[in-house]
Amino acid sequence: MVDLRTPKGTVDFPPADAAKIREILAATERVFRAHGAVTIDTPTFELKDILLNKYGDDSVNIYDLADQGGDVCSLRFDLTVSLARYIATRRVRRLKRYQVGKVFRRDQPAVTRGRFREFYQCDFDIAGVCMPMLADAEVIKVATECLDVFGLGEYLIKVNHRGLLNLVFRLLEIPVSSHSAICSTIDKKEKISANELIMELRAKGLSEETTKRLLKIISIGGRKDVIHSLKDGVLFTLANTEAETNSFKDEMDAIISDFSLLFEYLEAFGIAQRVVLDFSLARGAEYYTGIIFEGFYSDHPETGAVVGGGRYDNLVDSLVKGDFSVPCVGFSVGVLRIFSLMTESVKESDTQVYVISKGSLYLKERLEVLNLLWMNDIPAETFYTQRNSIQDHNKFISKNKIPITLIIGEHEIKNKLYSVVFGGNQKYVSKDEVVTYLKNFLGNDGK
Amino acid sequence: MVDLRTPKGTVDFPPADAAKIREILAATERVFRAHGAVTIDTPTFELKDILLNKYGDDSVNIYDLADQGGDVCSLRFDLTVSLARYIATRRVRRLKRYQVGKVFRRDQPAVTRGRFREFYQCDFDIAGVCMPMLADAEVIKVATECLDVFGLGEYLIKVNHRGLLNLVFRLLEIPVSSHSAICSTIDKKEKISANELIMELRAKGLSEETTKRLLKIISIGGRKDVIHSLKDGVLFTLANTEAETNSFKDEMDAIISDFSLLFEYLEAFGIAQRVVLDFSLARGAEYYTGIIFEGFYSDHPETGAVVGGGRYDNLVDSLVKGDFSVPCVGFSVGVLRIFSLMTESVKESDTQVYVISKGSLYLKERLEVLNLLWMNDIPAETFYTQRNSIQDHNKFISKNKIPITLIIGEHEIKNKLYSVVFGGNQKYVSKDEVVTYLKNFLGNDGK
Repeated sequence: MVDLRTPKGTVDFPPADAAKIREILAATERVFRAHGAVTIDTPTFELKDILLNKYGDDSVNIYDLADQGGDVCSLRFDLTVSLARYIATRRVRRLKRYQVGKVFRRDQPAVTRGRFREFYQCDFDIAGVCMPMLADAEVIKVATECLDVFGLGEYLIKVNHRGLLNLVFRLLEIPVSSHSAICSTIDKKEKISANELIMELRAKGLSEETTKRLLKIISIGGRKDVIHSLKDGVLFTLANTEAETNSFKDEMDAIISDFSLLFEYLEAFGIAQRVVLDFSLARGAEYYTGIIFEGFYSDHPETGAVVGGGRYDNLVDSLVKGDFSVPCVGFSVGVLRIFSLMTESVKESDTQVYVISKGSLYLKERLEVLNLLWMNDIPAETFYTQRNSIQDHNKFISKNKIPITLIIGEHEIKNKLYSVVFGGNQKYVSKDEVVTYLKNFLGNDGK
Repeated sequence: MVDLRTPKGTVDFPPADAAKIREILAATERVFRAHGAVTIDTPTFELKDILLNKYGDDSVNIYDLADQGGDVCSLRFDLTVSLARYIATRRVRRLKRYQVGKVFRRDQPAVTRGRFREFYQCDFDIAGVCMPMLADAEVIKVATECLDVFGLGEYLIKVNHRGLLNLVFRLLEIPVSSHSAICSTIDKKEKISANELIMELRAKGLSEETTKRLLKIISIGGRKDVIHSLKDGVLFTLANTEAETNSFKDEMDAIISDFSLLFEYLEAFGIAQRVVLDFSLARGAEYYTGIIFEGFYSDHPETGAVVGGGRYDNLVDSLVKGDFSVPCVGFSVGVLRIFSLMTESVKESDTQVYVISKGSLYLKERLEVLNLLWMNDIPAETFYTQRNSIQDHNKFISKNKIPITLIIGEHEIKNKLYSVVFGGNQKYVSKDEVVTYLKNFLGNDGK
C-alpha cells in the first residue's frame, strides 16, 4: 500500500478551501492592478547560489533539489530574490510589478494557523529611483487596501527602519557580522518567550548588559509622535559620551527624516491612523535596508503578520557585485494566513443552469441544450448517470446553489420548449428563446 | 560573480509574456467553469513513491528533492496523479474539477516551441461512474472550446483507445510487461524519424515482422467511418486463424461501441467534424485505460499537441490497491505551447489614469487625487521622480496605452479642478465631480 499523505507541512485544498484561496488571490490581484502593476513569472526553483546569504538564520529551511546532474537548484524561498535576479539580468531601471506564486520553507508548520511549508505569496514591489519614501508609502498603502478588501476587521501596520536597527546595533557595539543573526532573533520575539529571546541573544554573543539595553530600545513604539521623541530618547539611552551622540547625529537625522516624510505621505493617502512605529520589528530576511513593516489583524494576533515587506536597496546590486544598482521596496500578502481567518464560505462552482429530464433520460436532447448554453457562455451541467433521481438532482442543485433547473420531458420535446424552474416558479420557454430568456434572468438576478 | 541564469529549461516571463499567459489561463478557467467545474489545490511536490510506475519511459525525467531528512519527495510530473491521490485519500465518488499549476519534467527543452522543464498545465477532469462515453465526450468538447477561445485557427482532435492498442499488442504477442514501454515509443512517433522509431521498437524486443505489422496498424486513421471498417480490417491484418479472430471479437466490439457512442455524443455537441481517429496516438503516461486524445492546431504542426488527455479508470484503484475505485477522464491544456503561438500583444497594465503636474511637482495634491481614484476602483498612477518631464510622461502613457491624463497645476489647484486629457481633448472637471466624470468616461469608452 502506497503512503498517500501529502508531504509534511503541505495539504490538499478541497473545492471549498480552493474557492476561498481563489477569491483572496483575485482580490489581491485587483488591488495590485489598480495601482498599475504588471506581472512577471519566474521559475519555481533557482540556482542554489542565488539564494545564499539572503535569509539569515532561516537559510537552513531552504528546500534543495536532488543532484540529478546539471544545475544545482533550490526551491524559491520567496519571490523577492527572484525579482532582484530578474532586474539584475535584464538591467531593468523601473518596474512596478506583482507576482503570485508558491514559495517553499522547511520550517515547523502550524497548519491551523495558516503556516505551511508550501504557501502562496502575492508580492507587490516598486523598483527604481524615486523621491524618498514615496514608493514606500504607496507600498504600505497597497498593503492597507488588501487588508481592507479581505474584510477581516481592524488592522494595524507596524513600521520600523533597518537603518535604525543597524544604528542601535553599532551603538551597542554589536559586530556587523552578527547584525542579520540578531535581526533573525528579534524577528522571533512574538513566537518565543521573553526568556528564550534573552537566551538566544546571549547565545549569539551579546553580553547581559547589551542584551538588556537592546531589549529596552526595541520596546519603544507608538504613534507618529514617537518620531519626535526618537532622537534624544534613543541616543540618550545608548550613547555613552556627547562625542558619541554627535557622531551618530546625521544618521539618526536621516532616519527621522524618512519616518517624517513617510507619515506625511501616509496622511495624504488617508492611512496614517493605521500605522504605528515599533522598534522591535526586525523581519527575517537579510536584504532589507530601509523601512520595514508588517500588518496584523487586531482580532487575530495569534495568526501573526498577514502582510509584510520593506525596502531593499542593495539586493540587485549585491547580485551583480556593484555594476548595476536599483533600489526596491515591496511587500507580500500571506495568502494562506488570510485564508485561515476566512470563515464565510465561497461559492465553489459557477453553474447557473442544471439540465434534467423526466420520464426518460433524453440524453441527446440534454446534450444539445447544454451545448447551446455553453456556446452562449451560460454555465450549465447535467447528470451522466443511468439513474435519474429527482432527489439526487435536488441535492446537487442545493449543494451547488444552482439558481435554475431546466427540465426536458415528452411534453417539452413535442412542443419544442423547455420547462425553466427557478425559486419555486415554473415557466415554459420555447427552444428558440431559451438563451435570451436565461441571459435576461441571470443578468438581473442570477449572479 | 553569482551565476544569474535561470536553471536549464526554465525562463523568466517578462510583463509582455506574463500578460499573455495570464490571458490564456483566464480564458481556460472561464471555459472550465462554464462546465460547472470546481477547483482544488494540491502540493507542488509529492511523496516520491506516489509517482512511481506512472509515466513509462518518461519516469527518468522526474525531479527529486534532495534528502534533507524527513519525507522523500519529487516535484509533480503532472496534475493527474495528484488528483487520483486526492480522490483516493478522501474517497471522493464524484468530482468535476479543474486545476491550474506548474509541473516539472527534466527532459530536453525546446524553449522556442514552448517546451520547458517547468510549465503550466490546466487540467479538467471528470471523476465518477457515468454512462459510457458521456464524460469522455464532454472532456473532448471542453478541449475544443479551449482551442476555439485561443483563436489560433483550425484544429483537429486525434482520438485513439488504449484498449485497442492493448488488443493489438496482444494479437502481436507483445508481452504485457512491455505495453507501456511500447506506448512510450509510439508516442514519440512525431518527434523521431521513421528509422529511429523502428530501432527503438526493435530495441524493446519486437521482432522485425512484429514491428512491421505494428507500424502498419498504427498507420490506420481517418474520419468516423473508419470505425465501421475497423473490425474486419484490423482483425484481418493481425489474426492468424479464425479461432483467434473470434476470441478477440467481444473486446473489439466493446471498443467499436465506445467509438460509435463517442461520435454520437460529439455530434450532439456539434464537434464531430473536429475529431479524427488515429491509431498511432499512444500518449506517454501508463495510467490510461480507454479513450485517449490530443489536439493540434492545423497551421502549427511543429508545436505538437496543445491539448491532450484520456480515460484512466484504474489509477485511483491502483493507489489504494483495490479497495476503492473511481473511473476518471480528463485532459490538460499545454499553456506554454499556446503561449508560444500567440503573436498578438496583450495589454500589460490596467492603468486608466496617469496623474501629472505642471509648473511644480504638487506631490501632495497628486497623492490625494490618486488616493481618491484608487478608493473608487479607478486604476491610476503617477510619477515619483524629482524630474518632471512631459516627454518622459508621454512615453510612459503611450507605452502603457493609458487613455486619460489628469493634470494638476497652479490654475487647477486655485480653482479646485483638474485638467482631464483624453484623445487630444482637454476638459476642466471640478474636484467634486472628477470620480463620476471618469467613471462615466471609462464605462463608455475606456475599457
